[in-house]
Amino acid sequence: MDAAEAFLQGVLHAEIPLTRSIGIRVADYTGDILTLAAPLEPNTNHKSTAFGGSLYSVAVLSGWGLLYLRLRELDVSAHIVIHETQVRYLRPVTGELVATARLAPGESLGRAVKLFQRRGRARIGLDAQIIQDGEPAVAFHGAYVIHR
Amino acid sequence: MDAAEAFLQGVLHAEIPLTRSIGIRVADYTGDILTLAAPLEPNTNHKSTAFGGSLYSVAVLSGWGLLYLRLRELDVSAHIVIHETQVRYLRPVTGELVATARLAPGESLGRAVKLFQRRGRARIGLDAQIIQDGEPAVAFHGAYVIHR
Repeated sequence: MDAAEAFLQGVLHAEIPLTRSIGIRVADYTGDILTLAAPLEPNTNHKSTAFGGSLYSVAVLSGWGLLYLRLRELDVSAHIVIHETQVRYLRPVTGELVATARLAPGESLGRAVKLFQRRGRARIGLDAQIIQDGEPAVAFHGAYVIHR
Repeated sequence: MDAAEAFLQGVLHAEIPLTRSIGIRVADYTGDILTLAAPLEPNTNHKSTAFGGSLYSVAVLSGWGLLYLRLRELDVSAHIVIHETQVRYLRPVTGELVATARLAPGESLGRAVKLFQRRGRARIGLDAQIIQDGEPAVAFHGAYVIHR
């Protein structure tokens, strides 16, 4: 785990206690893509697959965490909140919950930061995917707001 | 707490362990409306308001639990899974997380059950709301699938 990954994991566990119950860890950060993971065991549902609320939490935080790290690199101090989401559950998740977030097509962080610096507020769309056995299992889209 | 409410709370806590970490309790069931609640303290985020993943979990389970109780009353044995959701976060939740679920406008449980009995599968839409100080704070729509 590199310094940015360790830093983000510390922030999540300190600021959002439920992430410790879910067992979220920062699995990988490339600069463009953030991957969060959680074990199945604390996140099972009535069918012994992953609970939809846990899958959602890992996905929404992968988007939040990606923005958090990118804005920190740009030395931009902003609050990041989730505004709207759409989720499709495509197949059950029967192993580790692994969510991978990136900017949605057509989105630009530079443009959002300019808007934020001018108006104190900007909106930006991220996509997160949870893959199970090489196939998409959960497709998540989140519109986040960064604000002063 | 009446028998149906106690029964559902037992099912949630036994089958979905994260509901115990979230502190979900069944607050009220009228036959048409199910209300679930959770305390703020285990569900805070970096802004000391309710974490979006916790709000989502309470909302998605209020819809699931309503279908679970209604189908049980009708003696219909079906799996219930969440298929698609849309969520809008309208304002922060700074107290107890209270989600109220009902069938979405135009939906009919009788029609869904008939389809399920004929084809082994049906889809039904539910709305859940989280209210904060008398104003909607989270608007949740979920399309659930009931199947054999």
